Amino acid sequence: MDQTIRVGVNGYGVIGKRVADAVTAQQDMELVGVSDVISDYRLTTAVCRGIPVYASTTEGAAAMRSAGITLAGELHQLLDAVDVIVDCTPAKIGASNLEHYRAHGVKAIFQGGEKHALTGHSFVAHANYATALGRDTTRVVSCNTTATVRTLTALKDAGLLAKARGVLIRRATDPWESDHSGIMNTVVPEAAIPSHQGPDAQTVVPDLDVVTMAAKGSHTQNHLHYWTVELTRPAAQEEILDALEAMPRIALVRRADGIVALNSTIELMRDLGRPRGDMYEVAVWADILTVHGTELFYTYTVDNQAVVIPENIDAIRALTGTVRDGAESIRRTDAALGVRAEFLTPAQRPVGAQTTAHAFEGPRS
Amino acid sequence: MDQTIRVGVNGYGVIGKRVADAVTAQQDMELVGVSDVISDYRLTTAVCRGIPVYASTTEGAAAMRSAGITLAGELHQLLDAVDVIVDCTPAKIGASNLEHYRAHGVKAIFQGGEKHALTGHSFVAHANYATALGRDTTRVVSCNTTATVRTLTALKDAGLLAKARGVLIRRATDPWESDHSGIMNTVVPEAAIPSHQGPDAQTVVPDLDVVTMAAKGSHTQNHLHYWTVELTRPAAQEEILDALEAMPRIALVRRADGIVALNSTIELMRDLGRPRGDMYEVAVWADILTVHGTELFYTYTVDNQAVVIPENIDAIRALTGTVRDGAESIRRTDAALGVRAEFLTPAQRPVGAQTTAHAFEGPRS
Amino acid sequence: MDQTIRVGVNGYGVIGKRVADAVTAQQDMELVGVSDVISDYRLTTAVCRGIPVYASTTEGAAAMRSAGITLAGELHQLLDAVDVIVDCTPAKIGASNLEHYRAHGVKAIFQGGEKHALTGHSFVAHANYATALGRDTTRVVSCNTTATVRTLTALKDAGLLAKARGVLIRRATDPWESDHSGIMNTVVPEAAIPSHQGPDAQTVVPDLDVVTMAAKGSHTQNHLHYWTVELTRPAAQEEILDALEAMPRIALVRRADGIVALNSTIELMRDLGRPRGDMYEVAVWADILTVHGTELFYTYTVDNQAVVIPENIDAIRALTGTVRDGAESIRRTDAALGVRAEFLTPAQRPVGAQTTAHAFEGPRS
Amino acid sequence: MDQTIRVGVNGYGVIGKRVADAVTAQQDMELVGVSDVISDYRLTTAVCRGIPVYASTTEGAAAMRSAGITLAGELHQLLDAVDVIVDCTPAKIGASNLEHYRAHGVKAIFQGGEKHALTGHSFVAHANYATALGRDTTRVVSCNTTATVRTLTALKDAGLLAKARGVLIRRATDPWESDHSGIMNTVVPEAAIPSHQGPDAQTVVPDLDVVTMAAKGSHTQNHLHYWTVELTRPAAQEEILDALEAMPRIALVRRADGIVALNSTIELMRDLGRPRGDMYEVAVWADILTVHGTELFYTYTVDNQAVVIPENIDAIRALTGTVRDGAESIRRTDAALGVRAEFLTPAQRPVGAQTTAHAFEGPRS
Repeated sequence: MDQTIRVGVNGYGVIGKRVADAVTAQQDMELVGVSDVISDYRLTTAVCRGIPVYASTTEGAAAMRSAGITLAGELHQLLDAVDVIVDCTPAKIGASNLEHYRAHGVKAIFQGGEKHALTGHSFVAHANYATALGRDTTRVVSCNTTATVRTLTALKDAGLLAKARGVLIRRATDPWESDHSGIMNTVVPEAAIPSHQGPDAQTVVPDLDVVTMAAKGSHTQNHLHYWTVELTRPAAQEEILDALEAMPRIALVRRADGIVALNSTIELMRDLGRPRGDMYEVAVWADILTVHGTELFYTYTVDNQAVVIPENIDAIRALTGTVRDGAESIRRTDAALGVRAEFLTPAQRPVGAQTTAHAFEGPRS
Repeated sequence: MDQTIRVGVNGYGVIGKRVADAVTAQQDMELVGVSDVISDYRLTTAVCRGIPVYASTTEGAAAMRSAGITLAGELHQLLDAVDVIVDCTPAKIGASNLEHYRAHGVKAIFQGGEKHALTGHSFVAHANYATALGRDTTRVVSCNTTATVRTLTALKDAGLLAKARGVLIRRATDPWESDHSGIMNTVVPEAAIPSHQGPDAQTVVPDLDVVTMAAKGSHTQNHLHYWTVELTRPAAQEEILDALEAMPRIALVRRADGIVALNSTIELMRDLGRPRGDMYEVAVWADILTVHGTELFYTYTVDNQAVVIPENIDAIRALTGTVRDGAESIRRTDAALGVRAEFLTPAQRPVGAQTTAHAFEGPRS
Repeated sequence: MDQTIRVGVNGYGVIGKRVADAVTAQQDMELVGVSDVISDYRLTTAVCRGIPVYASTTEGAAAMRSAGITLAGELHQLLDAVDVIVDCTPAKIGASNLEHYRAHGVKAIFQGGEKHALTGHSFVAHANYATALGRDTTRVVSCNTTATVRTLTALKDAGLLAKARGVLIRRATDPWESDHSGIMNTVVPEAAIPSHQGPDAQTVVPDLDVVTMAAKGSHTQNHLHYWTVELTRPAAQEEILDALEAMPRIALVRRADGIVALNSTIELMRDLGRPRGDMYEVAVWADILTVHGTELFYTYTVDNQAVVIPENIDAIRALTGTVRDGAESIRRTDAALGVRAEFLTPAQRPVGAQTTAHAFEGPRS
Repeated sequence: MDQTIRVGVNGYGVIGKRVADAVTAQQDMELVGVSDVISDYRLTTAVCRGIPVYASTTEGAAAMRSAGITLAGELHQLLDAVDVIVDCTPAKIGASNLEHYRAHGVKAIFQGGEKHALTGHSFVAHANYATALGRDTTRVVSCNTTATVRTLTALKDAGLLAKARGVLIRRATDPWESDHSGIMNTVVPEAAIPSHQGPDAQTVVPDLDVVTMAAKGSHTQNHLHYWTVELTRPAAQEEILDALEAMPRIALVRRADGIVALNSTIELMRDLGRPRGDMYEVAVWADILTVHGTELFYTYTVDNQAVVIPENIDAIRALTGTVRDGAESIRRTDAALGVRAEFLTPAQRPVGAQTTAHAFEGPRS
């Protein structure tokens, strides 16, 4: 049994609270505590659940105490007690924390809201665990970028990927938000093409030929991605599905099993008893995926709240170097979180839809 | 230790799957199996979780088997093996099942989608557990009616209720539905005043002076109720809160704790680790509740998927008569499900908002 | 023919642009120009439509000119050319403009986002036109308060109103907003009871016994109000409908005519060819309205973008005193805008729903 | 002045009522009447506006008369009085009407809900007006297909189009629908790839190399399309914009003008005074459109209620042959409807976004 890694989480929001729970679920890690500045039900609940709560600022400490929150101390004390701090503070704020972490000699993991330049290393476990070994810092890329890297790397590893063009339909805000952060009855395209996710994926896998376009939809949970991929050679649907299944944290779903929309997967996670209803996997529709010659078309859904959680866990092991083999870290993380390769059994592979053949009779002259 | 009650669930949908899990959580009950006719992920997941699955019809059995679902048998076999069947089939269908249940000599519990006349008894545990003792059938009233009866009975028991007038803002469809069952960017008032919930509450507590008006809003989870109550005498806010807290399955929440909307309670349930994120309690806003003379105004939110679950569990004990005391059954059910009287601690009671005093200077002449 | 009133509009947003169009539609008014600080399509379109556009600030002027917007001048020049300025700037900003208006000796009308104290007079044409005659300033109350005053005054004028308790389901943001101003898949109750609309209605009709509770729903257009009214005496549904029809700017709708939700009225306005699809009337459901003894229950929908527009037009005449009789001003305004007393013909009055009688069998002993 | 074409509209819904208004706006057409079976506000309003209303069925006639709707007759009488009938009945129903139309010797136009095989000719004015000349029937393709054909044909006519891959984010239901036809807080991908729009576009322009993928979003109006196009040669952004502007019924919009989302264009149409707020043009974002080498990326929004209206008008002229030149028919239609080539002036063409250059540094080795 290897040494226990002492972990702290700074920022107990949508990502932070999930990272905290995931750390607790690992046999080789200990959650020393979480730190924040808010004093409402989110932190009160953490205290009730026995999680040591620290204050990220002195002002925060006063407000939290007056709200009846028992504090284990302030952030600097948490930093003195941990090997790794996972920064889950709001976008851009993390950057200002780096010096603080360095001063305490703790290794730090940042989230996708920060720029690649902050750490000089962007992380997706399967893609580049090895290059993060022993580093002082890394950045776990955003939910959209993580999903993009997972499926494109699966195709790349199989020698099938030439270039990929994606359209990302993002959720507008998080389910708990009620203070005017949403959009209503509209779709909002991003200001520029390409959207940031394509270039962001290249910070993890530099030689990806990828371009993304993105828009925000009027829903609060999960993203939907559509990809048009140029393959290096013609391939059968079966071969593509094999390549995707071979990749950790990608799970196939089927319309034939009743999984027909984003909210189907949300209900499925609840039925599976997942904590908070989280889906760590990228759920690819096996019976919508279509290959035509050297062109591949597919779509999947991504749980924006959960997909980066296992990556954060692996990043902790990579920075500390307690596990040298990325595959082994992924195996441990996924076993602890119950990550699956396929959501429904029996895994009856769909035959390429008949309609497809017809649809691709192609241009008529 | 009393005998174990053998329970079956017919209809494994939003309510049925929750009743099944709640039965499993009771020490004095055994879930013999669930029955349905669908063959998608919802039943596949039940099988994966080790729940014996039966087919409600012979046609259903064929479809389910061909979908790879291992069946424990058909409904009639389930009925031969249980003491009580909880009918969670879609509204109006339950009625056609009653004879089938009678023929097998099993006691039956129906849901709020059925009419009171079907069983002649409508059930809310605290209000009329005793009158259900030993009966062959009862009907657990709908989520909106259950919540209505809980808070009004709390006031009635305290001798405070003269009459109540409510406006119910209902969710439009369930979170998992994706097949054109929703409404979009609108509010739809019910066709008539009063809406059915008021008269329905009188099937449980006949002498309630209650009138309800209802509309469907453009959201998928939880209802919001507003009540204007005429009290029998002037009362302090503190006295009202005491009366509500004295009632099982009512839990106070506070805006001051960050619980400011329907989706705040949904996030809170996830943070509390509730299975499926369920809230069995009626969540009353303690710091919005206002009393002015003999008028009481308050609002609360109701989890339409979960609020009736503990009532179904109590109904099982009442029909079988294994527990004669309603309070004892409620105690057991709530302990097994982790039902709470208050969601956040410390329970700092809000002082009646200053603005209120001013606002109620009342008419100016 | 009376003199032409020279009118300016400061703030060309949701309300401002509608007031501008309505002023143009009046024979006794001239739209001298509109003023704002934004430089996007909203102002570009005004220029294209031939409306003189002024800049409310010098900085705004620079930005607008660089955006290619031809300016007629700056706000102070508009103020020098008008008799009345209608302030439609965002809430709270209007207050800071008052001195500017006074300095130019122009009469000023503010909107419901400002406090009553700013002008000392709050306006709803039918209720208190006379008291605004010749004043330098007044405030047209908010959309919710305007609708509240209209229907309650109708009952009051008929000698039927004892007290009124209302629940207001508000739209969350305006249809054009796309910049994170909305709420999603939730309902947000207001922080306190009573909500401001009740006390606000008393600034127009001081002796109203009214209390309101309000929540924001997940939709972008129109409010829905539910009222529980204590009558001074028993009255027939027919008598109530007569009282409502006798009041200007209240129009009856019927579910029987297919008007079943908020978005039905929006479609109806488009079918009627209303500019921008605006509904100036409060649309009361005649066949949902129910009377039981001395209790009246009814619901209506309010176009939050349009309902205050005719009130602003009347306020212009009242301040200038060109029309002494409120009824005459209302007649002119409504004729110019095509306001109706009933939306659908033939006006078959519904018979009190049979279900109602039954529903009100009332408490069972 | 050419002869007046006598036109009837069968099916007075979202499309039918717009076609009726557009026919009335043409100098060379006469709206003889509209026919339907419903008897609610939609038809009552048509009567109020002076449109002759016919009953599509005898049962419908009875219901309509009893609802107080004055009928001009039944469908067969309307068919005896027109040269062309525009069938706007719900999808699939039109097919059953064809024989009825033939029996009366009237030319017939169907909508995109019908199959190409029904008429053997699918219509988009600019693309194939000539091949519809004198035909007995044609089918105006769906809103999504119409928009697809317009922009791809613009590129094809400029000799720039090699192949196109599109992702279509569709609205879920129409704004007026309130009867459980919507989806809520989700996105629903279509069952198969390609979605029908790509092959459907080939029924109009057979040699298009186009593939589409589609999903329904949680909004009620306008679609958003994203395209990845392989060009025949490198081209400047300016050249692409010229090609799009040269095509009728495509209008450029700019984020720089404040048009940032689907609901921005809806508000813009209202500001422009468009009847029902309709947008007949495909609104392409000029400052999001990006070219990189031989790849073109762009996005636009489509008013699903209005985009096919001008096509129906042209189809009427084509079938009757009164105007032999498609360009002349388009000119007349667009002049009558106020169709524009650009929505905002001055038309400052955006310079290719600097960020783009950087973003396309492309793969890093």
